[in-house]
Amino acid sequence: MISFKNDYSEIAHPSILTLMQKHSQTQFNGYGLDALSISVKQTIQSMLQANVDIHFLVGGTITNKVLISHALRPYEAVISADTGHIFVHETGAIESTGHQILLIPNANGKLTVPLIEETLKGFSDEHRVLPKLVYISNATETGTFYTKAELQALYRFCQSRDLYLFIDGARLGVALAASGLTLNDLCENSDAFYIGGTKNGAMLGEALVIKSESLKPFFRHAIKQSGGLLAKGFVAAIQFEGLFQNNLFFDLGTHANAMAAQITSGLIHLGIIPIYPVSTNQIFITLKKTQVDILSKNYAFEIWTDHGFEQTIRLVTSWFTTETMVQTLLKDIESIL
Amino acid sequence: MISFKNDYSEIAHPSILTLMQKHSQTQFNGYGLDALSISVKQTIQSMLQANVDIHFLVGGTITNKVLISHALRPYEAVISADTGHIFVHETGAIESTGHQILLIPNANGKLTVPLIEETLKGFSDEHRVLPKLVYISNATETGTFYTKAELQALYRFCQSRDLYLFIDGARLGVALAASGLTLNDLCENSDAFYIGGTKNGAMLGEALVIKSESLKPFFRHAIKQSGGLLAKGFVAAIQFEGLFQNNLFFDLGTHANAMAAQITSGLIHLGIIPIYPVSTNQIFITLKKTQVDILSKNYAFEIWTDHGFEQTIRLVTSWFTTETMVQTLLKDIESIL
Amino acid sequence: MISFKNDYSEIAHPSILTLMQKHSQTQFNGYGLDALSISVKQTIQSMLQANVDIHFLVGGTITNKVLISHALRPYEAVISADTGHIFVHETGAIESTGHQILLIPNANGKLTVPLIEETLKGFSDEHRVLPKLVYISNATETGTFYTKAELQALYRFCQSRDLYLFIDGARLGVALAASGLTLNDLCENSDAFYIGGTKNGAMLGEALVIKSESLKPFFRHAIKQSGGLLAKGFVAAIQFEGLFQNNLFFDLGTHANAMAAQITSGLIHLGIIPIYPVSTNQIFITLKKTQVDILSKNYAFEIWTDHGFEQTIRLVTSWFTTETMVQTLLKDIESIL
Amino acid sequence: MISFKNDYSEIAHPSILTLMQKHSQTQFNGYGLDALSISVKQTIQSMLQANVDIHFLVGGTITNKVLISHALRPYEAVISADTGHIFVHETGAIESTGHQILLIPNANGKLTVPLIEETLKGFSDEHRVLPKLVYISNATETGTFYTKAELQALYRFCQSRDLYLFIDGARLGVALAASGLTLNDLCENSDAFYIGGTKNGAMLGEALVIKSESLKPFFRHAIKQSGGLLAKGFVAAIQFEGLFQNNLFFDLGTHANAMAAQITSGLIHLGIIPIYPVSTNQIFITLKKTQVDILSKNYAFEIWTDHGFEQTIRLVTSWFTTETMVQTLLKDIESIL
Repeated sequence: MISFKNDYSEIAHPSILTLMQKHSQTQFNGYGLDALSISVKQTIQSMLQANVDIHFLVGGTITNKVLISHALRPYEAVISADTGHIFVHETGAIESTGHQILLIPNANGKLTVPLIEETLKGFSDEHRVLPKLVYISNATETGTFYTKAELQALYRFCQSRDLYLFIDGARLGVALAASGLTLNDLCENSDAFYIGGTKNGAMLGEALVIKSESLKPFFRHAIKQSGGLLAKGFVAAIQFEGLFQNNLFFDLGTHANAMAAQITSGLIHLGIIPIYPVSTNQIFITLKKTQVDILSKNYAFEIWTDHGFEQTIRLVTSWFTTETMVQTLLKDIESIL
Repeated sequence: MISFKNDYSEIAHPSILTLMQKHSQTQFNGYGLDALSISVKQTIQSMLQANVDIHFLVGGTITNKVLISHALRPYEAVISADTGHIFVHETGAIESTGHQILLIPNANGKLTVPLIEETLKGFSDEHRVLPKLVYISNATETGTFYTKAELQALYRFCQSRDLYLFIDGARLGVALAASGLTLNDLCENSDAFYIGGTKNGAMLGEALVIKSESLKPFFRHAIKQSGGLLAKGFVAAIQFEGLFQNNLFFDLGTHANAMAAQITSGLIHLGIIPIYPVSTNQIFITLKKTQVDILSKNYAFEIWTDHGFEQTIRLVTSWFTTETMVQTLLKDIESIL
Repeated sequence: MISFKNDYSEIAHPSILTLMQKHSQTQFNGYGLDALSISVKQTIQSMLQANVDIHFLVGGTITNKVLISHALRPYEAVISADTGHIFVHETGAIESTGHQILLIPNANGKLTVPLIEETLKGFSDEHRVLPKLVYISNATETGTFYTKAELQALYRFCQSRDLYLFIDGARLGVALAASGLTLNDLCENSDAFYIGGTKNGAMLGEALVIKSESLKPFFRHAIKQSGGLLAKGFVAAIQFEGLFQNNLFFDLGTHANAMAAQITSGLIHLGIIPIYPVSTNQIFITLKKTQVDILSKNYAFEIWTDHGFEQTIRLVTSWFTTETMVQTLLKDIESIL
Repeated sequence: MISFKNDYSEIAHPSILTLMQKHSQTQFNGYGLDALSISVKQTIQSMLQANVDIHFLVGGTITNKVLISHALRPYEAVISADTGHIFVHETGAIESTGHQILLIPNANGKLTVPLIEETLKGFSDEHRVLPKLVYISNATETGTFYTKAELQALYRFCQSRDLYLFIDGARLGVALAASGLTLNDLCENSDAFYIGGTKNGAMLGEALVIKSESLKPFFRHAIKQSGGLLAKGFVAAIQFEGLFQNNLFFDLGTHANAMAAQITSGLIHLGIIPIYPVSTNQIFITLKKTQVDILSKNYAFEIWTDHGFEQTIRLVTSWFTTETMVQTLLKDIESIL
């Protein structure tokens, strides 16, 4: 059984496990106040031109939840694509903190200035919530990514309308690899974003980068109240120590994208056209249910949408995916067509 | 620098790191739905006579928060000792889910039936909250623990008054070691409790055991909404795989208690009497500030209460504490008296 | 200046003011526990075949908020039309209690079984909220209403899927008058509904009728916690005493509808076709902005949508609207065409 | 049956009912945006030297809830006397908005600077909430009141510690009458306070006065989200129109106090000493249960504490209380001694 189910199926990249072994006899301060956490944050800060606060959190949902609920007053709302992870796959976590999400229907997982501008109309009085934060994912939930020009346009617009722009970077590694953007580009064009570890080789952990001064105060209070403050904060720090040594974070993203590209060109060669253009590490294809059933005997993957006779499945590559796995998969798909 | 600051200063017990290495090439299902998680849960289930649900969570605060908010309707409240972790050290996490905590002042961190009975008076109408869940910690925040008879009395009372009894077991290892209680004793005498991994050798993780049928449904929804559902749930499972091999969980608790007992008898020999009777792995002593200042040059510990001229400090032992550390500490304390 | 702005522009119907005068020397128990409140509730109960709980609340938003948040567990969600008052005009009140609203796009303000059935797909696992309550308004926000057959179909479906059906009856008076439904029809075909007083002649007050046994317990706790428990509950009771004497509640709805029908036929005669079919007391028409500007000098009304050159305005009739007002309005509209 | 149960047992003072009759043919704008609301707010503003925002709300609990939850960030907490209405009689309304209440045990319902100062110790790091608002009631729940010097000291202290001072004025009328303070004294010595209508002759309504600039923005959003924005806001405005004509608000408070003073001196004459010094309109006395049983045949009152053989009861006077009622009561108490 080979898994293309997601990009978080293994414990961690070997170099991270090695680091954990290396630090295993050290005594650290708790709650991220240890020397290693401070040092790893400085490493990240050194890649950015703005002065930021950095917090290591365990996973994506709690990162989204803490940042957004910290940013908003009770009557303020989030704007998100209707495919946004915060609406679709977090069991109402944002609403559980009291905030409405205003959904923008869209085709490819991305928001644009005109879409947001249209949504803002009509939120003028006290009978409606006050839109205050724009949430985007990069890479998006459909595998697309934002260009630098797109991010710049979004951020300029948000600033002109007194909206925060927050970027969910659970899959930032593949987005940077695909777009050529740097971490500093993200930082320049948002109020806060996070660098996803869990889906790019880490055992756990997301590094939240807060640039906006108004979001910085008392953020550790917010994390602790959410239940998201790791007692052994240094464990999360070690992950990013590993990811930001020897270009690992970027290389793993590049590798995952390359594997997805191989799968894609193989599929196209077989006449199977992914339903979204594949630019990062997620591939969505539609097969007959009978074909899916056969494939699922040797491969793990998500059934994304069940149309009855046909099913759309999602294949995800990662740092762990090998060319051998890819070739085996393609051969087996060919055999069921 | 030797740390007696807490029992979560190191990454993990070596045998757990070894297990992580062992599983490093395996592909797991996400969100705790993998075969290993299921198997480790069965191991814990096998030690219990009741049929339970088990969930692995990242840390204590989020475990308390999810269980309590899941158990309560909006107008229901928690009863806790005024030293309870949920009130004192979780930044209002329970209140952030909408629930009042009714505090019972007490001397040694423990609740009793008469104390709860007295508190329940006067909560009869719709102008007051409805007490519904009793929260206790075992071991408590002051290092004391509950006997089997005490737990039985509490649980019998709670059942007679339609109250849930929930036991915070962040330091359950040392409590079991000190009291001779078994996991099954805990299970028999509560509606839910958790087995603390973080403070007893694990890298992270608490194993929440839910016995009450009314608390079981949709608990995974509650975890996910809280942001507490680990993508790599198998990482938490591995911790408990390690802790419940070769009696490790119990041995580590016993060791920590033994180290604390050595410190305590050394201190008493030096004329320093801990302010709470020491029965688990926490020792609270009061020294002159000048003495504390000297000690803090070579030892890490918490200053629990600052009385100005004097300070109460907390020393915590763990699986990592060695007899050499203990003897060094006692010698250095002797030298500053 | 004549107001067609809404149906709550005057203090109260004269017969209610008379009742208030009549009771002015009486001393009542507080919080709705007085004899009059009990008696008025019995009057309402007598019109219903099921055994219900009845609570008088101050207004619509708090009634929606308390009922819905009382009905739902934290991870459960509401299904509503995208025109639903709870989403569009209550400033995120439902989300502020922690619950997601799942919106169904629709044309005329009404939900149907197929629309709900389609929405339910895909809410199967713990990464998504659990739809649990269907919210409809009757009359709807666009002035349409539900027939008995439609309500029966909805309720049968909701019961088959373990969903609550809750009917916002802020404008129930005009809906009953238009549809010929009785209060008992509402009661038979929902788990809870409310009888709107504020928009049908009362000074304030909505009478919430709870039929579902699972929604009844501790509802007064929920009201009190929300801040919605009137100290002088008897003031709300007096409103419904008045409304349910001499058929007043139904007559006022009939009158408001009749006035709206007169306006509608006058408008159609002038060539102005309302954008929704007018069946209750709300009329939506589109005029040139220049025409709206003139009209607004002597009439109060809401500008519903601003299209720039044109504007859609809303005209609302009520118990206070007279034929003279209607004729004056029509004449003035004729003069600006 | 004569009621000394509370000060909100009757619909409203006759002059207010007269005003309602007078306005009964007027059409008003909704939601407090009508000309009368604006004018009555100006009347209140004219009594104050600072520039304030004024909002009319329906009752005390929702006023406390909206103001406090609007003032606080999620991790911030309220400081209150342990007798505070927000903790004791509002069913966890404040906690339901996510905030912890830090209770100060006290004897007479009042907070002092040293008590608050002591409470603030130890709230320094992210594991504890951040105290941010001090809540006091004036008159207090035990019938005591604050002097000008006491308020000044509290406010000066709060300002020095960056704490809001909020005064619950549900019984402000009797407090002003007893203390000689003016509304402007309240305004000068707090960030926000409210003028209680419900318990001083109004049919409903509290006038919330916000002085602190940081509390003003978007307060109407907060009210609407809470469900506290009256559709017929003008009904609340009319109450304060009546209360602030001809000195009514102050006269009613003076009268209630005078009636309480008569009862008190009569009781003392009979050898019954109230358990708190009586300075406003609440009298707490302890009688034998057998005496209470007899008294309760002809009088309504609250049994405050049940000691078994004895019971402490509360007698409350109001604008409605007459000397005849007082003399009858005293005579009947004499007869049961």
